[in-house]
Amino acid sequence: MQTYNAEIIGVGTELLLGQISNTNGQWISSQLADKGISVFYHQVVGDNLERVKTTFSAAADRSDLVLITGGLGPTDDDLTREAFQALTGKSLEENEEIIEKISGYFNRTNKQMSVNNRKQAQVFTDAVIIPNQEGTAPGMIVRYNKALFIFMPGVPREMKAMMTNFVLPYLKENLGLKTIIKSRMLKFIGISESQLETDVKQVIDKQDNPTIAPLATDGEVALRITAKADTESNADRMIEKTEAEIKATVGHYFYGYDNTTINHTVLRLLLEKKLTIAAAESLTGGRFADALVSIPGAGDVFQGSIVSYAASSKVDVLNIPEHVIEKEGVVSEACSYEMAMRVREKFDASIGISFTGVAGPDPSEGKEVGTVFISIVEKGKEVLTRSYYFPGERNTIRNRSVKKGMELLYKWLVS
Amino acid sequence: MQTYNAEIIGVGTELLLGQISNTNGQWISSQLADKGISVFYHQVVGDNLERVKTTFSAAADRSDLVLITGGLGPTDDDLTREAFQALTGKSLEENEEIIEKISGYFNRTNKQMSVNNRKQAQVFTDAVIIPNQEGTAPGMIVRYNKALFIFMPGVPREMKAMMTNFVLPYLKENLGLKTIIKSRMLKFIGISESQLETDVKQVIDKQDNPTIAPLATDGEVALRITAKADTESNADRMIEKTEAEIKATVGHYFYGYDNTTINHTVLRLLLEKKLTIAAAESLTGGRFADALVSIPGAGDVFQGSIVSYAASSKVDVLNIPEHVIEKEGVVSEACSYEMAMRVREKFDASIGISFTGVAGPDPSEGKEVGTVFISIVEKGKEVLTRSYYFPGERNTIRNRSVKKGMELLYKWLVS
Repeated sequence: MQTYNAEIIGVGTELLLGQISNTNGQWISSQLADKGISVFYHQVVGDNLERVKTTFSAAADRSDLVLITGGLGPTDDDLTREAFQALTGKSLEENEEIIEKISGYFNRTNKQMSVNNRKQAQVFTDAVIIPNQEGTAPGMIVRYNKALFIFMPGVPREMKAMMTNFVLPYLKENLGLKTIIKSRMLKFIGISESQLETDVKQVIDKQDNPTIAPLATDGEVALRITAKADTESNADRMIEKTEAEIKATVGHYFYGYDNTTINHTVLRLLLEKKLTIAAAESLTGGRFADALVSIPGAGDVFQGSIVSYAASSKVDVLNIPEHVIEKEGVVSEACSYEMAMRVREKFDASIGISFTGVAGPDPSEGKEVGTVFISIVEKGKEVLTRSYYFPGERNTIRNRSVKKGMELLYKWLVS
Repeated sequence: MQTYNAEIIGVGTELLLGQISNTNGQWISSQLADKGISVFYHQVVGDNLERVKTTFSAAADRSDLVLITGGLGPTDDDLTREAFQALTGKSLEENEEIIEKISGYFNRTNKQMSVNNRKQAQVFTDAVIIPNQEGTAPGMIVRYNKALFIFMPGVPREMKAMMTNFVLPYLKENLGLKTIIKSRMLKFIGISESQLETDVKQVIDKQDNPTIAPLATDGEVALRITAKADTESNADRMIEKTEAEIKATVGHYFYGYDNTTINHTVLRLLLEKKLTIAAAESLTGGRFADALVSIPGAGDVFQGSIVSYAASSKVDVLNIPEHVIEKEGVVSEACSYEMAMRVREKFDASIGISFTGVAGPDPSEGKEVGTVFISIVEKGKEVLTRSYYFPGERNTIRNRSVKKGMELLYKWLVS
């Protein structure tokens, strides 16, 4: 099975000043991945002839496909053609068809065509020309030694149209791409990234197709299974076999696939079980409510939340007995339980959940920053109260509290 | 004047698969630009020992500063240390202090420390260690030939804390950076980015030092004034002159400097005026409360919020008279007013603010998606109710509602 290594180069000083992010690199990568082409490097270089040339030279030595965005425009800063010419000694010529297209554009819009605009019609004599349906400068595909250089504009709209309508079909046809690459993401909660990896290390190590990659974002961890095969059904079968092996060890922590989040999953489970929920939030300050309300359809299960941030509001609004707070404090198991119970009653919800703790920056009631209590009550069931210590600064602690609340709810709902 | 050329390297296969964008590269670039350090290259490379080594080697040959993010974590995919060792032959040692920190974290959180976690404590024997205030793996600064290599984690929160608190001060001290580049951000609310730019165009066009750059984030707009000078006081003087010219045209919309947000400003004004606030939230679903609680010290003014998401909870929890909802609906001026008034009373706060509207995806009560009412009530003052139409999808509408509420509060408090 023939494989191709690609490299993506962004040309433009604005990318190096931090004014914009190299989203072109990300987008092209995802497109190539879907076609089974591996991307080994991204490079970004400014509008400087020598440095652009150096970058092209390194790419020519190590990559089969080099996709370049930017530097094809009309200004003196646009040096992509010049740099490639300096590296390869190839000749440029003015393309009549493109000159006509550019002057037609200027006529239609009643703008003046400047001398510089002619520069955009300069193409390498041995190039395959990529039509630009969204702008003026054409793209080009040019072979240099064993590498295929693909030049495209930096404007995302123009580049994406070229990739979709010309470059990807061209590569498919000319490289004879046969490989199917499929990925599936398994999402886990309640286990750390390093623990997850330790537990599935044997499965990871014994194979290189499918590959298994651990990922962590936002307090959740995932494993991405990626299979290369000659047909889609073979890829699916390989993924399913690997998934079963993974689940045999850490299936207990698995909760969903791909773009599913734990928040979506909790909402879906509540809906399936026809349960409603209300929250009483102290340190999380509305962030738990917001996590649910962010999802369309939350109104079918989420009743509301009381953010009882001031200690007095726990008595005045949530009606927690004063003696509980006087005796135990607001950061306590007793207060946590009362919050969950009373908010459930007030909103007449099936489930009440509460969050109380110390988000910092200062300790409170003699309790360390990061101390958090979470309670869940459901009509006719046992109460669950857990205490945690979360490290980090204020909003990290608040995020982890919400995430842990979702994890507890998930376990509550599936058990 | 000595100048330094920097290069930024992102390590991680996920960046090459197009799953995430290299936002670290962009952020670090903007920070270095502020310090007058030129960035000449970005590179992104996957989790492959040989390729990471090749990338480090190219950087060592051409750059004075090499800033690397990613590949320091606990898993076998994390190869940054190994690749640098393979290139330089430098030795690694386990750092006792970091081992203690990591095991302390695992003890406090009652999690199991895996063998892999020890790997994070491996540091080069000649490295300057960068403390990690937000996580476990430390960063490192190591010299190799004429280049200074700066290793940081890929998690943006951890990397940013390291850059701000350690790396930038370290570079300033050790490189003897002489050109002073100073920036001041002027923040505006209640004016669009294009209007702001049109209004100050004359001031922008007539000068190139200081430069003036318009920026828009999160529904707020700002102008960044950047001056280059030989001394700090000269830079300050240049900035102040430009600031005065800008304020002569758009000073009416100015509300603060630099990292101040409208949320901070509202909180500060409430504190100064010894006023407290409570909120009643429907479509914003806790996001207004969260915006205030995210700021340390919110407890001095913010009493709490009632997220009355279900229509029934507006009656049962907020005690809005049923006939108001029956006659006017929940998305109405009357309901908005009742929500603000009743929540102020319940929390015994000086000010009550309310948000009700249609976040979508579907219209509600015959009202279009994007319809929003916001009310402000204060003891002994007139009531303010405004209605808006915000375009965009669900969470855009919710964000704009919160931001508009802050703008109304700001105007309320300064008038």
